[in-house]
Amino acid sequence: MTNRIILGALRQVTIGHTTQGFWRHPLSQAHRYNEVDYWIEVAQILDRGSFDFLFFADVVGALDTYAGSPAVPLRTATEIPMADPVVLLPALAQATNRLSFAVTASTTYEKPYLLARTFASLDHFTHGRIGWNVVTSALESAARNLGYDRQISKDERYDIAEEFLEVSYKLWEGSWADDAVQRDKTAGVFTDPTRVRPIEHRGRYFEVPGIALTEPSPQRTPVIIQAGASSRGRDFAAQHAEGVFLVSDRPEHARTAGDDIRSRAVKAGRPADAVKLLSMVTVVVAPTSEEAHRKLADFRSYFDYEAELAQLSALFGIDLSQVDPDLPLKNAETEAIQGMLDLYTSVDAEREWTTRQIAELNNFGGAGPVFVGDPVEVADALERWLDETGVDGFNIADPIPPVLARDFVDLVVPELRGRGLVDAEDTAPVTFRERLNGEGASRTRGEEHPSARYRW
Amino acid sequence: MTNRIILGALRQVTIGHTTQGFWRHPLSQAHRYNEVDYWIEVAQILDRGSFDFLFFADVVGALDTYAGSPAVPLRTATEIPMADPVVLLPALAQATNRLSFAVTASTTYEKPYLLARTFASLDHFTHGRIGWNVVTSALESAARNLGYDRQISKDERYDIAEEFLEVSYKLWEGSWADDAVQRDKTAGVFTDPTRVRPIEHRGRYFEVPGIALTEPSPQRTPVIIQAGASSRGRDFAAQHAEGVFLVSDRPEHARTAGDDIRSRAVKAGRPADAVKLLSMVTVVVAPTSEEAHRKLADFRSYFDYEAELAQLSALFGIDLSQVDPDLPLKNAETEAIQGMLDLYTSVDAEREWTTRQIAELNNFGGAGPVFVGDPVEVADALERWLDETGVDGFNIADPIPPVLARDFVDLVVPELRGRGLVDAEDTAPVTFRERLNGEGASRTRGEEHPSARYRW
Repeated sequence: MTNRIILGALRQVTIGHTTQGFWRHPLSQAHRYNEVDYWIEVAQILDRGSFDFLFFADVVGALDTYAGSPAVPLRTATEIPMADPVVLLPALAQATNRLSFAVTASTTYEKPYLLARTFASLDHFTHGRIGWNVVTSALESAARNLGYDRQISKDERYDIAEEFLEVSYKLWEGSWADDAVQRDKTAGVFTDPTRVRPIEHRGRYFEVPGIALTEPSPQRTPVIIQAGASSRGRDFAAQHAEGVFLVSDRPEHARTAGDDIRSRAVKAGRPADAVKLLSMVTVVVAPTSEEAHRKLADFRSYFDYEAELAQLSALFGIDLSQVDPDLPLKNAETEAIQGMLDLYTSVDAEREWTTRQIAELNNFGGAGPVFVGDPVEVADALERWLDETGVDGFNIADPIPPVLARDFVDLVVPELRGRGLVDAEDTAPVTFRERLNGEGASRTRGEEHPSARYRW
Repeated sequence: MTNRIILGALRQVTIGHTTQGFWRHPLSQAHRYNEVDYWIEVAQILDRGSFDFLFFADVVGALDTYAGSPAVPLRTATEIPMADPVVLLPALAQATNRLSFAVTASTTYEKPYLLARTFASLDHFTHGRIGWNVVTSALESAARNLGYDRQISKDERYDIAEEFLEVSYKLWEGSWADDAVQRDKTAGVFTDPTRVRPIEHRGRYFEVPGIALTEPSPQRTPVIIQAGASSRGRDFAAQHAEGVFLVSDRPEHARTAGDDIRSRAVKAGRPADAVKLLSMVTVVVAPTSEEAHRKLADFRSYFDYEAELAQLSALFGIDLSQVDPDLPLKNAETEAIQGMLDLYTSVDAEREWTTRQIAELNNFGGAGPVFVGDPVEVADALERWLDETGVDGFNIADPIPPVLARDFVDLVVPELRGRGLVDAEDTAPVTFRERLNGEGASRTRGEEHPSARYRW
């Protein structure tokens, strides 16, 4: 029933990312986040395991909501210190054969003329193995350090994002014709100037009258990925995204969210399968089921509850240090709970939750499910999840990096290959978009993707 | 008499850079500017030749002053198409042993909180082999596409640059103490929060109240490089720069400019040798002098006069397509000539110049000298230039890349090594700043560099 599974690896160039405390495990190499050698090691493991992409989340601020300070995140290495993922990508592409890369960049803080050049450059340098995780940056502390008194409203951030993408599409798809670049030494014509045109963009947020600075790259528009969970975020994803992340540990919620995004995509004039849905999951595998459960119990003993609270506080904009962890959250926190519901569909709205209970939901798998067992059990659980939710694949976290990724590639991938769900290791390299949509599909799809409107 | 020479290689991730037309030469690989493999090849040649650094110039706009259009630059590949150099650097550092990298970034268009993170990340990822060429971006077409009706005045651009560096220094030098990062798995302390502090910057152009997002990197502040030739630019360089590029084909002018920058540095409280001066030069070498001259004549036959005019038009903000190329430039152009004098000290103010004469000054060496001959003749010419000008080294262009660099490394570097002017190939790797100032000097110098004011 299932086709090929899409396999992504969810990472951030920092120490504690999807769940907190696990950098303290003796096997964790998370503290090596600032070494290229480390990331090459990670990328090569994934490449060997036929992963489709390595996805880099990113934030550009410290988490300082909890007790009004970044002290707990600093001590517990919760998303800080960090480094810039964008500059890593060509080095990782160079060290791998087939793996693609998705990287986060914010439409609230970047400038489209510069960012479009950066993504086009990445697409050249990696031979089309690039995706862009479009974020609008909710973090207050980022806004404060980037020239705003406070965060712009979510609606306005999405208005900016819409126009940012429009400018980017015009630069990528509309400024240089396919045949503009001649590279003709004899005729002395590098580019035919009649096949390059200014985009003449004059909008509400951006004025970009000129021509694109880069020549057309293999994909032109990088694969557009999005994770917005609000209604506005889902509409944005339904229009633009070719990959959407879902975070939920309950399959019925993942199914509802996925169906909703697909039906919004159809309303926006796109085929339902134009948006690939990816569930965040964590996998603990061992040769035997018993050993896998023993490993998970060992891992879980490193969970850092206060660090988790600090992360949730920043995520939902509420200082959870001020709340009794064992009393049900009161009305004052209703909005935060609603935010959590949007993002973590695992939280059941009807139940009365305590702070501790919410934090402990994330005690190893973040807000996604943890699949544990021997290779067959894990492969079964992954297939069952696909059946129950209708998603197209996974974005797999690794709280004890690179141990869980290596285990997955050594033990689960051969099982998935045996089931025909994952490519052989020596499959020929293709662009990121071809990995999602099949060979020959390097450009955005048909007439329905908004980028197509701006083609020459 | 001369010490070790500093050797830099001047490049741009584009086709035509310092002089125009030469991509058409059959041996030129300039058209491969958008391949990482090509840049690795270039970097490995330089590394083998004990070059100290590979320097990437950059612009973020098309040259459209000439005839009011980018048509000639497009046809002749004059600085367009281009790609983003920043994302290449870790891949190049990974492929080389000792080579350092300097990259251009603009204080007019970037945001200090983000750019400081990017440079700190690069410094981590390359083990301290990073420098920043600080530019304030004079190009009108860049301004128009980056949210300004027209270019901000030069004085204001430098005011912004001053504050941008202040913010950056605070983030790099002042936010995290040397002992902040503990990485202590047993105690569960990654970072000691009492050893990290917010920078509380509230200035005229930037508000950055928070903490730095990156932990201290090997050099903390990247090596600061500058090429501003105006009086304001020289004052800026005298305060901040650790490397300054001079562009002149007349040694007496290079000496005057260099002495001026050094005396300004001394006035700013820095030792005269804190600023390393580097002359842009082009070298054509062959086993025999006769062969070298024959090669140069062949190369020169590819010069593209109109492309050169288009580049100069953008550089000086005057449309040279409107000027009779063979009449002396009139008063209307005086300002442009003065600008040219500032940058290209080779232009003699007393003489009456025609457009054609000025363009042809750049007919192979750009505005710098061309040294041509056998290895001994070239080494002699380089030494003579150091003696006559007092500069510390060279930033060597390659109009027929990577041919001229390879010739230089194969033929001239052994001669320079024999004279004790260049390191052996197997010298141990050090940081960029150590290459300029000696081992153990990874941090900015003493108390006199402005960054030192912001140290913890």
